[in-house]
Amino acid sequence: MTQYNSVTQEIIEQIVAAIGAENVYTDEVKKEPYSHDELVGKKYNKIPELVVLPTTPEQVAAVVKIANEHTIPVIARGAGTAFTSASVALFGGIVISTERMNQILEIDEENMFMVVEPGATTATVQKAANEKGFLYAGDPCSGDSSFIGGNIGTNAGGNKAVKYGTTRQQVAGVEIVTAEGDIVTLGGKLKKDSSGYNLFHLIIGSEGTLGIVTKCYLRLVPLPESQMDVLAVFPSLKTAIEVVPKIMSAGVNPVCVEFMDNGSVRNCEAYLNESLPDSENGNYIIVSIEGDNEELLEEQLGTIDEICTENGASSVLIADPERIWKARKIYAEADRAISIVTSMEDIVVPTTHIPETIETIAELGEKYGLTIHCAGHAGDGNIHANILKKDLSDEEWDEKLHAIQEEIYAKVYELGGKLSGEHGIGYKRKAVLAQYTNPVEIKLMQAVKKALDPKNILNPGKVIDVE
Amino acid sequence: MTQYNSVTQEIIEQIVAAIGAENVYTDEVKKEPYSHDELVGKKYNKIPELVVLPTTPEQVAAVVKIANEHTIPVIARGAGTAFTSASVALFGGIVISTERMNQILEIDEENMFMVVEPGATTATVQKAANEKGFLYAGDPCSGDSSFIGGNIGTNAGGNKAVKYGTTRQQVAGVEIVTAEGDIVTLGGKLKKDSSGYNLFHLIIGSEGTLGIVTKCYLRLVPLPESQMDVLAVFPSLKTAIEVVPKIMSAGVNPVCVEFMDNGSVRNCEAYLNESLPDSENGNYIIVSIEGDNEELLEEQLGTIDEICTENGASSVLIADPERIWKARKIYAEADRAISIVTSMEDIVVPTTHIPETIETIAELGEKYGLTIHCAGHAGDGNIHANILKKDLSDEEWDEKLHAIQEEIYAKVYELGGKLSGEHGIGYKRKAVLAQYTNPVEIKLMQAVKKALDPKNILNPGKVIDVE
Repeated sequence: MTQYNSVTQEIIEQIVAAIGAENVYTDEVKKEPYSHDELVGKKYNKIPELVVLPTTPEQVAAVVKIANEHTIPVIARGAGTAFTSASVALFGGIVISTERMNQILEIDEENMFMVVEPGATTATVQKAANEKGFLYAGDPCSGDSSFIGGNIGTNAGGNKAVKYGTTRQQVAGVEIVTAEGDIVTLGGKLKKDSSGYNLFHLIIGSEGTLGIVTKCYLRLVPLPESQMDVLAVFPSLKTAIEVVPKIMSAGVNPVCVEFMDNGSVRNCEAYLNESLPDSENGNYIIVSIEGDNEELLEEQLGTIDEICTENGASSVLIADPERIWKARKIYAEADRAISIVTSMEDIVVPTTHIPETIETIAELGEKYGLTIHCAGHAGDGNIHANILKKDLSDEEWDEKLHAIQEEIYAKVYELGGKLSGEHGIGYKRKAVLAQYTNPVEIKLMQAVKKALDPKNILNPGKVIDVE
Repeated sequence: MTQYNSVTQEIIEQIVAAIGAENVYTDEVKKEPYSHDELVGKKYNKIPELVVLPTTPEQVAAVVKIANEHTIPVIARGAGTAFTSASVALFGGIVISTERMNQILEIDEENMFMVVEPGATTATVQKAANEKGFLYAGDPCSGDSSFIGGNIGTNAGGNKAVKYGTTRQQVAGVEIVTAEGDIVTLGGKLKKDSSGYNLFHLIIGSEGTLGIVTKCYLRLVPLPESQMDVLAVFPSLKTAIEVVPKIMSAGVNPVCVEFMDNGSVRNCEAYLNESLPDSENGNYIIVSIEGDNEELLEEQLGTIDEICTENGASSVLIADPERIWKARKIYAEADRAISIVTSMEDIVVPTTHIPETIETIAELGEKYGLTIHCAGHAGDGNIHANILKKDLSDEEWDEKLHAIQEEIYAKVYELGGKLSGEHGIGYKRKAVLAQYTNPVEIKLMQAVKKALDPKNILNPGKVIDVE
C-alpha cells in the first residue's frame, strides 16, 4: 500500500480556505457517522481524518487537488447504504460526502434526459422524473436513502432491472473530478456515441476508485400508466424458484421477478409486526408488470396466475403493492434486528442456475449450522443470501463465514456466476475478487487503476489492490 | 509513433509454424483486399506486410504473442465495411482477419444469450436468433456483410437503436486477446454484474486498439410477432425533420425513425433504376414499429399517420418494407456510383438539435458548392451527411472538405454533439477527435491505451495517438 501523508492542520487550513469552514468537519462526533456503511464489524469501520461536504464540482476538485499534492486518500461517499465498506476511509484520508450536492439540475423533456447532482437520493430523482411524466428506471431497494452517485458507483441494480437493466443502462454520461483534480464530462445527452473510448462506463461501478462523480446524465423513459403486482406463494422454495424461468419466457415482459424464502418472510413478518400471507411455510415470488393498456395487463396477470397455479403455488394474490414491497424492501433491516452482524451476499448467476445455487446455499447453511435468509432478484439471477452471525463468538463467526463463503463462491464461479450483481466489491470482497477472477483480468483492472489514479489516492484499498 | 519492426521471413515462418500456412497470406494479390475499407483515398490505403486468418482464439493469441515480442503492429479486421480506415495497416504490420472465425457457438434459449465468433456476419447472427424465436437487436445498414466483431469494435448503431440501443446494449461480454497475447473473458452470460471494473464496455467501441475480440456474448430478446413500416413524404426537409420529436413523444415506442433528404432519395432512385414515391421533391421519414398485438400496432400506425399528416406530409404510406429499406440501405452505395470519393460524416447531436444541424449542413453545402446527401437515424440524433467529391481536383477537395468539416464540427460540438454516433474514429477522425475533445478526456483515453497496450502494437495510429 502506498505511503500516505496525514491530514495536518496546515492541510485542513488549505481546504477550509478553498471550500469554506462550513463545509469541513474536523470534530470526532460529527465525523463518526462517516466511519461506516451498513457493514458492521470493527475491521470495516474507521473515523476519517477529515470529512468535507463540498457544494460544487469546483470544491470537489479543489479538495482532490490538495489531496493529490500531498498524497492523501480521498473517499467519495454517498448515503453510506453499501454493504461492503466501500466508502469508509480505512486507509486514512478525507471523506468527500456528496450530501450537499443534491439538486436536480435539469429535466430535458424533449430529449428525455435529466441532469442531477450525485447527492440527490434515488427517490428524489424518481419523483422528479415522475412529476414530468417520465420514469427514471433505476430502483434499488435502498432508494429512499441511497444517493444517485452511489448507485452509479456500484452500478446498483434493484427492482426494475429485469426490464430496464441496472444503473449502467440508465446513465448517458457523468461529470467527474479526476485523480489530479480536473473536472471533465464523459458522455452527455446523446443516444449514441462512438467518439473514442467510452470512459463513463468504466466509471460506473468503479466505486470512486477511478474518479469522483459530480454530475449525472440520466436517461428517462415514458412513465407507464399502470403497474400491477402479483404475489405467488409456494410451499417450497424449490417450486417457487422453478417457476421463474417459466414466467420469464411467457412473453409478459415483467419489470421484476423477486423472491423471498420462508425464513425471510417470517422474519419480516415478525419485524413489521403485521401478518403476511401464508407466512407459516410460504415462499414468495413477486412479479411486477407495467404498461399503458390495462386490458393487456389484466391478460398478463391471468397468464402469470395460470403459470404459478399450474406449478404448485398454494395461492396467487393480486398483491397490495405497498404491503408486499414493504416486506421485500425491509428484508435486510429485519435481519439486522435479530443479528447485528450479518454477511449480505450478492452473488449473480445465469438465471437458469438459480435453483441449483439456492439449493446449495440451503445445504451449506445446514452443514455449518448458520441461519441464512435468501431473497433477491430471481429474474436477473441475483441472489441475496444474508448469513446471520446471531450469538456466535467472533472467532466461530469468522471461521464459519470464511468456510461457507469459500464453498458458495466456488459453486457460483463453477456455474458461470460472479461475486456481486449490484452491491459491488468495496473492501469486503476485494480479496475474494482477486481469488476468483482470472489473473489476466485482474492485471488489466490494475493497469486501468494505475493509469487513471497513478498516486492511488482515490478510495485506495477498495475493489482491487494495485501493488 | 513507436518504431516498429518489419515482418521478416523468420517471423513469417514462426507464424506459419504456429497457425498453419493455409492461414497466412504473403502474396500481394491475396493481401490487396485487406489494404482498405470503404474509405477511398491513397492516404487511407496500404497493403499489409502480412495477412493472417486464424481459426481459433489460440491462433489469434499466438500471432499477437509473436507480434508483441517483435514490436510489430497487429490490426484486427472484420468485413472492412468501415468508413474510417479503422482496420487498415497504415503503420505496417499484420492484419488479423476474423473471417474464418465465423461460427454461432451457442444459442442459450433459457438464459436468452448467444455466443458467437467475431467473424460471423450480423445477418447470420440475426438469422440464427430469429430461427429460435429471438431477436438480436443490433442492425447496422451494412449488416448483410459486416461482422459482429466489427460491430463491437465501433459500437455500431443502425436501424433499431431508438428502441434497443446500440451494439453496446446487446453485448454482455467478450473474450479478447490482450496486447500480450493472453486470452481472457470479460463479462459473460450474466444480466447484472458489479464485480470489479467493467472492462468489456471499454473494449466495445475501441476499434481493436485495446484488445482483439475473439468471442462475443450477445443478449437476445423475444422476437416481436409483427413489424410495420410507415413512409411519410414531406415537401421540405425542415418539415420532415420537425415531425421527428413529435413522433418520439407520441408514446408509440418506435424501433426507428429514419430520414432521407430529397437528394438522397433521387440518387437512390437513379441508382436502383426504379421509381420511388414522390421522388421529385419528397423528403422521407421512415418509422418502424413492432410488437405482438396487431390491433395495438394498427392503432399506433394511425397515430403516426395523423401526426405526419397534421404536420405537412404530402403522403403517408404503409410502406412495402422491402422497397423502402432497400433505398435507405443503398444510400451510401448509390452515392459512390456518382462520386467514388466521398466523406461520410457520422455526427450525433441531442435529438432536438437535428433540425438546426441539418439546416446548417445544407447552408454550408451551398456556401462551399459541395453536394451533400443527408440521411440517417433521426430518432437518435445521428446524421449521416455524405459529402461528394465528384469532379473536384484533389487539392480543391482537400481544401473544401477540411473547411466545411471544421464548420460542421464546430456547430455540432456547440450543440452538445460529437463526431461519431456509430462509425467510429479510426484513422480518418483521429486528429479532429483530439481537436474537439476536452484535453482532460484525451489524456484519460491515452492513459487507458498505454495501460492496456504498453508497446502500442494494437491497431496503432487509430482513435488517438499516445505520444
